[in-house]
Amino acid sequence: MTRKLIIAGAQLGPIQRADSRAATLARLIALLEQAAAKGAKLVVFPELAFTTFFPRWPMERDAPELLGCFEAAMPNPQVQKLFDRARDLGVGFYVGYAELTPDGHRFNSAITVGPDGEILFKYRKIHLPGSDHVKEGQKYQQLEKMYFEYGDMGFPVQRGPEAWGRPVLGMLVCNDRRWPEGWRCLGLQGVELVMVGYNSAAYDPNGGESESEELRTFHSILAAQSNAYMNATWAIAVAKAGVEDGAGLIGGSVIVDPNGQVVAQAKTKDDEVIVAEVDFDACRQGKEKMFNFAQHRRPQHYRRIVDQVGAEAPA
Amino acid sequence: MTRKLIIAGAQLGPIQRADSRAATLARLIALLEQAAAKGAKLVVFPELAFTTFFPRWPMERDAPELLGCFEAAMPNPQVQKLFDRARDLGVGFYVGYAELTPDGHRFNSAITVGPDGEILFKYRKIHLPGSDHVKEGQKYQQLEKMYFEYGDMGFPVQRGPEAWGRPVLGMLVCNDRRWPEGWRCLGLQGVELVMVGYNSAAYDPNGGESESEELRTFHSILAAQSNAYMNATWAIAVAKAGVEDGAGLIGGSVIVDPNGQVVAQAKTKDDEVIVAEVDFDACRQGKEKMFNFAQHRRPQHYRRIVDQVGAEAPA
Repeated sequence: MTRKLIIAGAQLGPIQRADSRAATLARLIALLEQAAAKGAKLVVFPELAFTTFFPRWPMERDAPELLGCFEAAMPNPQVQKLFDRARDLGVGFYVGYAELTPDGHRFNSAITVGPDGEILFKYRKIHLPGSDHVKEGQKYQQLEKMYFEYGDMGFPVQRGPEAWGRPVLGMLVCNDRRWPEGWRCLGLQGVELVMVGYNSAAYDPNGGESESEELRTFHSILAAQSNAYMNATWAIAVAKAGVEDGAGLIGGSVIVDPNGQVVAQAKTKDDEVIVAEVDFDACRQGKEKMFNFAQHRRPQHYRRIVDQVGAEAPA
Repeated sequence: MTRKLIIAGAQLGPIQRADSRAATLARLIALLEQAAAKGAKLVVFPELAFTTFFPRWPMERDAPELLGCFEAAMPNPQVQKLFDRARDLGVGFYVGYAELTPDGHRFNSAITVGPDGEILFKYRKIHLPGSDHVKEGQKYQQLEKMYFEYGDMGFPVQRGPEAWGRPVLGMLVCNDRRWPEGWRCLGLQGVELVMVGYNSAAYDPNGGESESEELRTFHSILAAQSNAYMNATWAIAVAKAGVEDGAGLIGGSVIVDPNGQVVAQAKTKDDEVIVAEVDFDACRQGKEKMFNFAQHRRPQHYRRIVDQVGAEAPA
């Protein structure tokens, strides 16, 4: 069984609030086809890939526009063409979306779909940034804590199919990638490829003092590189990029090897496919030596990580 | 109270097995004086800074040469001149050393000494790499797990003196810096400066297949950068570098800011001082926003980090 696989990141340029769902889906399908033409068997789309980054807009809980950003089932008629085209091409994919459960819960979720069109597994974002209430007087909001519940599934992994070399797959969503706890929970399950989609601000759209876009992009790539290295896993992190209705998003989509080295990186802030051949057996050296957890970890000294939430500095 | 402080890394070139303790101590003192002349108030020396990296040599537990590498008290006559000179200069320091306790325990330890010459706090290395037995037929060994016990103090922090701006200080030793758990335990105590000394192989001295020195140096710096960023802390990581009795050590000593950016880096693999002014208040943005642990961490999903030692991959 070969353990080599060509994977792709399908970076999306901006999706404006007024863009139709159908037009956006057509862009995803075009990227999928480009990736497949380059030999990719697994394509990673961004977080909340079917819509604009709607948590920047305050809406009532039951506003039709807000509900129209959520998927009440997956797949569903609004996204079915992507599933169909992927199955026809024999390509699997990761995609982030706003999930509305049958009993009314809302999550910032991601799924990985196999080459047969079936959902392999789901993840619900745990590290929600932003605010749980509308900040008055601000044109742009970040309302993830208001629109979504915290993920309730932990950090699951799933083996991919035989055709992919049965790699141990894990998923994170956006801000999760900055939290080493999530990566380590995946690493402790032997993860060999961590897939991440994101929408990350390039600057403060309300004009406040802000880190530079360059620094923010550096942070995004640094988090992917280092956590891939420290868990001896491949990683792919894929942006929605560019300016959505006046609010900028960084690009910087990357594929990173288990040494933490960038092997492919997006050059634009628009729709763009990046591709690399990954060899899952390249994870073995790190997992067996430097990051042989069984030999080197000392959990009795890590208790603070679970016993305490916030920082507690000495007096 | 100013929260700005000039700190220095005192990278050491190689210390050969035959070098005298007195000659080595004179090199440390010379580096201390150079750092003080540049305005540094806190100087970081490497791991096991008073001797060659002796775990590469197999010795009997009670061999005089091995015992001569350990400090039965701190300070003691063999290191007193460093303490005296530092106190005279009003400079504090971190130094790594092999600790022999009164009741016979042995640790790979580090202390931080205040500008008054008093020991502020101690740390005992938790992530010991290497082997717990001699590997027959190998010229060079890595016997840390044989010569030392695992650290038993957790990851303590300590506030520095008023003259330094009362920063929350933390210590790690060498391989610890690759383990995000240790950094996070410090971050959860509000750490503002993590000091690390290291001896890291530049290649396999026994001639086996090996990562390049360039890649190993990249890993070392990547670990410091990312863990500083993800805990919104300054970090300083200082090497013993160069070729000791045929076994090469990487250099790459760095000072890293709370954004994960390198602000000073050694250029040589010899005795060399690197210096930067650090502003402890520069940690605040990260600690209050992106890495506001109280707002964003979800420890109920991190249980694997303490409930499990080794990786457990799905079937």
